[in-house]
Amino acid sequence: MSKTKSPPLMEKIVSLCKRRGFVFQASEIYGGIGNTYDYGPLGVELLRRVKDAWWRDVVTARDDVVGLDSAIIQNPAVWKTSGHVDGFSDPMVDCKTCKARFRADKLEDARCPEKPSKHPGECHGELTEPRSFNLMFKTHVGAMEDSGSVAYLRPETAQGIFLNFANVLSASRLKPPFGIAQIGKSFRNEITPGNFVFRTREFEQAEMEFFVPPAENDRWYEYWKQERFDWYVRLGIDPAKLRMREHEAEELAHYSTGTSDVEYEYPFGWGELEGIACRTDFDLKRHAEASGVRLEYFDPQTKEHYVPYVIEPAGGINRMALTFLIDAYREEELEKETRVVLRFHPSIAPITAAVFPLVKKDGMPERAHEIERDLRLAGMSTFYDEKAAIGRRYRRQDEVGTPFCITVDGDTLSDGVVTVRDRDSMEQERVPAAELSGYLLERVRTWKRA
Amino acid sequence: MSKTKSPPLMEKIVSLCKRRGFVFQASEIYGGIGNTYDYGPLGVELLRRVKDAWWRDVVTARDDVVGLDSAIIQNPAVWKTSGHVDGFSDPMVDCKTCKARFRADKLEDARCPEKPSKHPGECHGELTEPRSFNLMFKTHVGAMEDSGSVAYLRPETAQGIFLNFANVLSASRLKPPFGIAQIGKSFRNEITPGNFVFRTREFEQAEMEFFVPPAENDRWYEYWKQERFDWYVRLGIDPAKLRMREHEAEELAHYSTGTSDVEYEYPFGWGELEGIACRTDFDLKRHAEASGVRLEYFDPQTKEHYVPYVIEPAGGINRMALTFLIDAYREEELEKETRVVLRFHPSIAPITAAVFPLVKKDGMPERAHEIERDLRLAGMSTFYDEKAAIGRRYRRQDEVGTPFCITVDGDTLSDGVVTVRDRDSMEQERVPAAELSGYLLERVRTWKRA
Repeated sequence: MSKTKSPPLMEKIVSLCKRRGFVFQASEIYGGIGNTYDYGPLGVELLRRVKDAWWRDVVTARDDVVGLDSAIIQNPAVWKTSGHVDGFSDPMVDCKTCKARFRADKLEDARCPEKPSKHPGECHGELTEPRSFNLMFKTHVGAMEDSGSVAYLRPETAQGIFLNFANVLSASRLKPPFGIAQIGKSFRNEITPGNFVFRTREFEQAEMEFFVPPAENDRWYEYWKQERFDWYVRLGIDPAKLRMREHEAEELAHYSTGTSDVEYEYPFGWGELEGIACRTDFDLKRHAEASGVRLEYFDPQTKEHYVPYVIEPAGGINRMALTFLIDAYREEELEKETRVVLRFHPSIAPITAAVFPLVKKDGMPERAHEIERDLRLAGMSTFYDEKAAIGRRYRRQDEVGTPFCITVDGDTLSDGVVTVRDRDSMEQERVPAAELSGYLLERVRTWKRA
Repeated sequence: MSKTKSPPLMEKIVSLCKRRGFVFQASEIYGGIGNTYDYGPLGVELLRRVKDAWWRDVVTARDDVVGLDSAIIQNPAVWKTSGHVDGFSDPMVDCKTCKARFRADKLEDARCPEKPSKHPGECHGELTEPRSFNLMFKTHVGAMEDSGSVAYLRPETAQGIFLNFANVLSASRLKPPFGIAQIGKSFRNEITPGNFVFRTREFEQAEMEFFVPPAENDRWYEYWKQERFDWYVRLGIDPAKLRMREHEAEELAHYSTGTSDVEYEYPFGWGELEGIACRTDFDLKRHAEASGVRLEYFDPQTKEHYVPYVIEPAGGINRMALTFLIDAYREEELEKETRVVLRFHPSIAPITAAVFPLVKKDGMPERAHEIERDLRLAGMSTFYDEKAAIGRRYRRQDEVGTPFCITVDGDTLSDGVVTVRDRDSMEQERVPAAELSGYLLERVRTWKRA
């Protein structure tokens, strides 16, 4: 990745994430653990919004895709067949002086732990020859800790889908083209630094295998490239910071007829946000051969069995959430101050509406609580705040991306009208409380990036 | 657990789960892997409904609980402090003849693998003395595979909450009583058989730590016992099959002042569905001591620091889903046949409404698809089916618990009225398509167990 921006933006985002409860360092009180993060109250809601949007748009809103949730620890034969046991590795070198280990192909990104101004090898430490280091986490299942009990934490969710191809086909009476999708944790024992939650050892994947008649492969590849690119734009990502990059022939897996990445321009350079890969019939054929189970579709019209080709859109929920955070982040100069605001799409924002009593008396808190309850019943995520001046409360909500702040004042108690303040324009509007949930849902539905 | 019912019911449920795509054996094409299951298209939707209902009722609908999502692999010091490294183990014995391993405290539940009519030891195989076997899955993090890189897959989500106590407190400006909740995978290297998905090696936990001023401990313990019991009843579980069991003094962890289980009468006997435990200030104090970080609340009114007490409702999402399945299962004798029906609460059912064209012509499929789309936009989960006779389609939906079947017939095309067939009463009603989504949402909201 090329460096295109100064680092401070990432530092500001990391700091905001900790201060406001989006992302904390995992095991922080014990000094942490490398490349691992925990998600706080707002972070977990952001992840939920991203997962819900993906599941809705990739699975439930479609007739041709169903969901799956397969186990993290599968029979180790799976990873032998998929090629991960033999081939899912990075070349590593050790420093003979300080014993530190580095990726042989990323030495220019690494620093000598004892002389941090130098790259490994340039510090006069001698490096070993590169050796291959498997990225799968290994464990033992059952009572014995021997080679017969070795198992792996899955490095991708995709194989769980191929394993269940025949079961899903038979239970769901589907015919190609159709997809099987899943969201779930995968694990990779990454050695390289991760740019906050961009690359972490455990991460939540969102993958879909779309099974098509081989002749329709190219059409569906184009379809899913477009569909996945557009998804990010629909959810408010700046299209000027997105691009589609087709892999060069030498980057492709040997079985792939084409792979493209949706890339985003991060503060640390362009990086992969999601990949769309043509996997052909490679995986189903390998698993059929290794297991002896037929993994095919029988077409009742042509009376022929065939192995479908596969188009795979695959992204990471954590990376998507980070991208939404970075893309939404603004510092805006107002008359007397700078405001920090996250201009999230309202359907991604952890809190849809914050509800404030103007002052903490005269029945305003009670009325505000009633209004908050009504919004919750309408399915909105809300937050009640009665502390500090109203302007300060607005700023606190801007900083976490809440699109609407609702204020209950003295007039509300007589005329039933509340003030709705818009995060982006900072304009205020008077809306009858009885119409509030419908009004807000319509505003969420019709929101456009400014 | 005492045996109270014949085994066939469980076999029928396992068979239904596979046939209709709720639950498959994990890695089935490779012969499986012990105590591990994958969830198919309907199973993943059932899990989603259970998680959404729990999250809504325990987190988002409340003012006093926030969410969290902590990592599965934490710094191993966490599990040293929590006591899991030293104490989270089962006593195991080996058979010197056949080399099989068994839980020493569950020999009466085990069978000799070579003489299945005998218990271990009674088959004349000699057993070793019991040895302690830790239930945590071990792995290695980073480039080196040595004792310094050992890490564990979490055996419970609760510790991730204690680790983040100070971060959440500061980010969310909460004061006791308040709770931090999370849903996520945990892992236990169980040796004993699991009764299908009742006990599995990996499982999704739903845990909440509710932090209270010590003087309020007993009141909140009673509150959460009642609240969690009632939650299952509200979601349609037969109250006659639920009971609350207070642990005897000798069952309690040494630090606990009380623990109760919500138990359900499974086909294999009464078993724990969820536990509600008083954990006192044990966990926060241990982590504060071991890490050197203060884990306390400062009360600005009394100007005092104190360590809150903790009430923990903890259940498993997979076990909850199994319980909803078992409790919903009925075989009903009709005039000419037996129908199998899952009488799920409509908010738990994987599919809310199935939409059928009466026949596959005359514009009925197109109209049915339009109606299905409208229901989806209103947030309902739908399924379109145009295959086989209408009665057969009803049966297929009964078997997976779909509460409403909507049929579009010739009249619908002229008068816009559809037929809504009720799963439980099998009665049919004519409803204008324009009012359908409102009508169904109201039926979901007001559903009562028959």
